[in-house]
Amino acid sequence: MTPEQMQAGILQGDTAVQRRAMAKAITLLESTRADHRQQGDDLLTALLPYTGKALRLGISGVPGVGKSTFIEALGTYLTAQGHKVAVLAIDPSSTVSGGSILGDKTRMEQLSVNPKAYIRPSPSSGTLGGVAEKTRESMLVCEAAGYDVVIVETVGVGQSEIAVHGMTDMYCVLQLPNAGDDLQAIKKGVMERADLVVINKADIDPNAATRAQAQITSSLRLLGMHGNPDHANTGALWQPRVLQLSALKGEGVDKFWAAVQQFQQLQTANGRLAARREKQSLDWMWERIDAGLKLAFKQHPQVQALLPRMQAEVASGKLAASTAARNLLAAQSQQAHTASKFE
Amino acid sequence: MTPEQMQAGILQGDTAVQRRAMAKAITLLESTRADHRQQGDDLLTALLPYTGKALRLGISGVPGVGKSTFIEALGTYLTAQGHKVAVLAIDPSSTVSGGSILGDKTRMEQLSVNPKAYIRPSPSSGTLGGVAEKTRESMLVCEAAGYDVVIVETVGVGQSEIAVHGMTDMYCVLQLPNAGDDLQAIKKGVMERADLVVINKADIDPNAATRAQAQITSSLRLLGMHGNPDHANTGALWQPRVLQLSALKGEGVDKFWAAVQQFQQLQTANGRLAARREKQSLDWMWERIDAGLKLAFKQHPQVQALLPRMQAEVASGKLAASTAARNLLAAQSQQAHTASKFE
Repeated sequence: MTPEQMQAGILQGDTAVQRRAMAKAITLLESTRADHRQQGDDLLTALLPYTGKALRLGISGVPGVGKSTFIEALGTYLTAQGHKVAVLAIDPSSTVSGGSILGDKTRMEQLSVNPKAYIRPSPSSGTLGGVAEKTRESMLVCEAAGYDVVIVETVGVGQSEIAVHGMTDMYCVLQLPNAGDDLQAIKKGVMERADLVVINKADIDPNAATRAQAQITSSLRLLGMHGNPDHANTGALWQPRVLQLSALKGEGVDKFWAAVQQFQQLQTANGRLAARREKQSLDWMWERIDAGLKLAFKQHPQVQALLPRMQAEVASGKLAASTAARNLLAAQSQQAHTASKFE
Repeated sequence: MTPEQMQAGILQGDTAVQRRAMAKAITLLESTRADHRQQGDDLLTALLPYTGKALRLGISGVPGVGKSTFIEALGTYLTAQGHKVAVLAIDPSSTVSGGSILGDKTRMEQLSVNPKAYIRPSPSSGTLGGVAEKTRESMLVCEAAGYDVVIVETVGVGQSEIAVHGMTDMYCVLQLPNAGDDLQAIKKGVMERADLVVINKADIDPNAATRAQAQITSSLRLLGMHGNPDHANTGALWQPRVLQLSALKGEGVDKFWAAVQQFQQLQTANGRLAARREKQSLDWMWERIDAGLKLAFKQHPQVQALLPRMQAEVASGKLAASTAARNLLAAQSQQAHTASKFE
């Protein structure tokens, strides 16, 4: 299938043709071959005018919290209302194991056979930045294909939740009802980013769920979710909210969706949604530039020769970090200079 | 004064000579002239074996919370016990205004004339990274001069609190007693980094202070201060704590110092303090390398020619962020390639 055929397939309505074109396009975008990359970039640029109309929903939560069950329930609810729902994943463990544990279709039995849903597992190789980039590009393919709700899920380990937060309009954290009593492996900085916290499996222990809801609500209010001077004078702002539900019983999914719609309306009206997307795109561009610069730096022969000693001396306190940085930067430009002298 | 004279002055005991040498050394390190920078690096490397023995204490808090009064009270308390106390500052506003509002000696009347205290205002120019780098280097000068408590203060705006957190052993956040009731301009991510939260001016409203203490304690416990798998199996860990005090009345400073000492003992015993410093140094080295690479990138003629259009197209959604990043990276290497062909 040529990129032109992929583009045509993605932009037209027939489900089977479209799905096949989407899968081919995403595979092309995931390829690291230079000619594929160029074709992929051209395809992305051609699709871009048709993107941006979806609601981008990030879902994060530790293993066992019930993400798949929740997404299955939400996706089934939304497709019944006429929405087209795409489910993507960022699985940081796949960068280590080379195999994806998330986005596995077998975890979402109904949704995976639902013609109005598209499920794609996490890209399975490369750095987190590379994996996140591919997911971000897959999101654009889904949007061009008319999917109006794109869910990006991640298991909250490593830095993947920051990547998901950085590509979605609304960031939701799933939580178990025992938050206040028991120790869950929530990383610093995850809860604080949440636009919505969902206490799943609330039916198991309603009292604990209600207690957790109250505690998390007050904590979110207290710990710096307010008073950011950047946000002054932009109209009413969304205040992070905490909901209870039971995905397994299908209870509370409607409340969840109502909250999402309120968020979307408010943040559209006050301009925060557009601003967030613009910032995300520019941040993402710079993030990829930084990664590219660092890769070239680390592959530079003079840097490679000097780096191990510099790192060891900095780590052992023999050399100031700032001095080591200057030495290494000088090594990189030195070599270029030397090379040009001999050419 | 030559760098050798500065070094000798810093490492010897006479207060007046030492102070003069410290001031000269820090001024040398703050210079951006290439020959000064080389001398500064040599001086730093020579001083480095004498550094690292101080406790590095970060103090963050919004304007009006009473940072100066607190540091004055703490510094006076510590010097009376025989400690030598250095006070440095990172003032992000000085990078805009060119003038430092922090570290002003007139704010700390007693400490500024105390022979066992050394106060240095924030470096007043450059990017935050540049300012933080100079503060970091000044810290090493103070340590080489035998100051065993180095306090780095910042007003919690911009990213400066991350910079302070990244160069200190213990990060303390000052807070007013009305935390739970009123909206204070605390940024996301500040409270969550705190090793110790100090509710200052607790005497003004003891009930509010006690309420705030309870609320912040439970919020810190709830919001991801626990369960970080990186920290497993390293022995007892410091749990963030919340204290009340009144710096103006000098009440609670002893309790504060007792908590700091407990922190230091625990984190030394479990290896976290050494690990934190090593990580800080390596992070700092890479931070400065990244900044250097980005600066060179932005100054590259082909990049400068292309960047405005790329940024505009990414911001307006005409071009995918990842495509723009690849175009810009190609522009930088393209030009180098072209240049070598013509040489």
